[in-house]
Amino acid sequence: MISKASIKFITSLQQRKYRRKHGMFVAEGTTNVLDFLHSGIETEELFATEAWIEKHRKETGKIPVTRVSLKELGRISSLKTPSEVLAVLKQPPEITPDLSQVKDLVLMLDDLHDPGNMGTIIRTADWFGIRTIICSGDTVDVYNPKVVQASMGSLARVQVSYADLGELIKNKPDYLEVFGAVLDGKNIADLPKPKLGVIVIGSEAHGISDKLLPLIDHKITIPGMPAGNTAAESLNASIAAAIICYEFRR
Amino acid sequence: MISKASIKFITSLQQRKYRRKHGMFVAEGTTNVLDFLHSGIETEELFATEAWIEKHRKETGKIPVTRVSLKELGRISSLKTPSEVLAVLKQPPEITPDLSQVKDLVLMLDDLHDPGNMGTIIRTADWFGIRTIICSGDTVDVYNPKVVQASMGSLARVQVSYADLGELIKNKPDYLEVFGAVLDGKNIADLPKPKLGVIVIGSEAHGISDKLLPLIDHKITIPGMPAGNTAAESLNASIAAAIICYEFRR
Repeated sequence: MISKASIKFITSLQQRKYRRKHGMFVAEGTTNVLDFLHSGIETEELFATEAWIEKHRKETGKIPVTRVSLKELGRISSLKTPSEVLAVLKQPPEITPDLSQVKDLVLMLDDLHDPGNMGTIIRTADWFGIRTIICSGDTVDVYNPKVVQASMGSLARVQVSYADLGELIKNKPDYLEVFGAVLDGKNIADLPKPKLGVIVIGSEAHGISDKLLPLIDHKITIPGMPAGNTAAESLNASIAAAIICYEFRR
Repeated sequence: MISKASIKFITSLQQRKYRRKHGMFVAEGTTNVLDFLHSGIETEELFATEAWIEKHRKETGKIPVTRVSLKELGRISSLKTPSEVLAVLKQPPEITPDLSQVKDLVLMLDDLHDPGNMGTIIRTADWFGIRTIICSGDTVDVYNPKVVQASMGSLARVQVSYADLGELIKNKPDYLEVFGAVLDGKNIADLPKPKLGVIVIGSEAHGISDKLLPLIDHKITIPGMPAGNTAAESLNASIAAAIICYEFRR
């Protein structure tokens, strides 16, 4: 059974202001939840069906688990079709990104607004072993339930922080080059790609902001085909990010 | 002003059975709608704000336009934040795909269920100049509002049809090779990629179906990094499709 107060608390975490107030967030679904259990992120409480609890007794260990019905899960879930498990997790402490420590590729998200895109980018970064994502202050909140959902557990392994991207880039070490996805840059396939560097992905509607554009060392483009004759105006931001990550790791 | 009957009719098109019954579908947003106006797809009627109508008088030509308020658009829109324009469009006649006519890359979607993924794949295909997508019968309906929305107008240029994929592949010409994205295939970067061929993308949850798997000539994989050590279980289906299209066009 779940109390009314718990229902109210958990659903309040769908809103950013309550996530910030309590320093908590919610993850749903077996993949997502198990990945968080195995990560360094602290689980406050689990809500799961009896069947799920039986099946995953080993993984849950000493974490407080409340047995609930699927109907009750429906009342606390942000999903259309609730999964069998929902976790309330503690937000890890905010970190201040430090580009002088970078030894790999870093993704920067410049005002990305779509939570599905952001979650997908986190999942893709994880696939390619990119562990650091730094977001502008206006980028969607990483603990938004739709971000957590689309990240499919990868949020447990990729470090996401928020900062003034312009200030970071201005104070970066010289050896760290900044690549930015634009519509009229150089063909990404033709460019030498370093093992470490910064890749900036712009917003869905406006691309990279005017403030950051002059700070980009290499403007890169994913060529459409047939060259100059393609009809789509642009690629989705998460698609562009993925192709760039792939090309850097290729 | 918009009549109650019109509101009822337009919102009914959010459901597949009414889309099929009437042979119509809905597109929203300026990019989407203008792309359809410029395509071969017939527009039945537009609903737009006065400001939008003034601005786009040239493009709308002789198409019937009903002037509506943003509030009225809210009543017929499937979007949280309605755009200034909504188009009711005629579904083009269904086509029977014919692999013997293929002179380029063809995408096959094997039970893809997420409308956002499908719309994004259509947009990506368009970007790379791939004009043919063939879907299994259980793939999400291409006229689902979320597919149309995510395709960002590309649906006007990419031909999408539905068929028994297994039958199609069994009867394909010999010279046409079939590539399929799996988790344990050959590194896609290492494989010769023909100018024409079939690329199969599996479902989000199950990958390529058991029925199709034996018919794949080349099982391909997008390697994670560091090799063998990556943590994300898989890539999102639209991301995998995009990287494969990119690599074939590279």
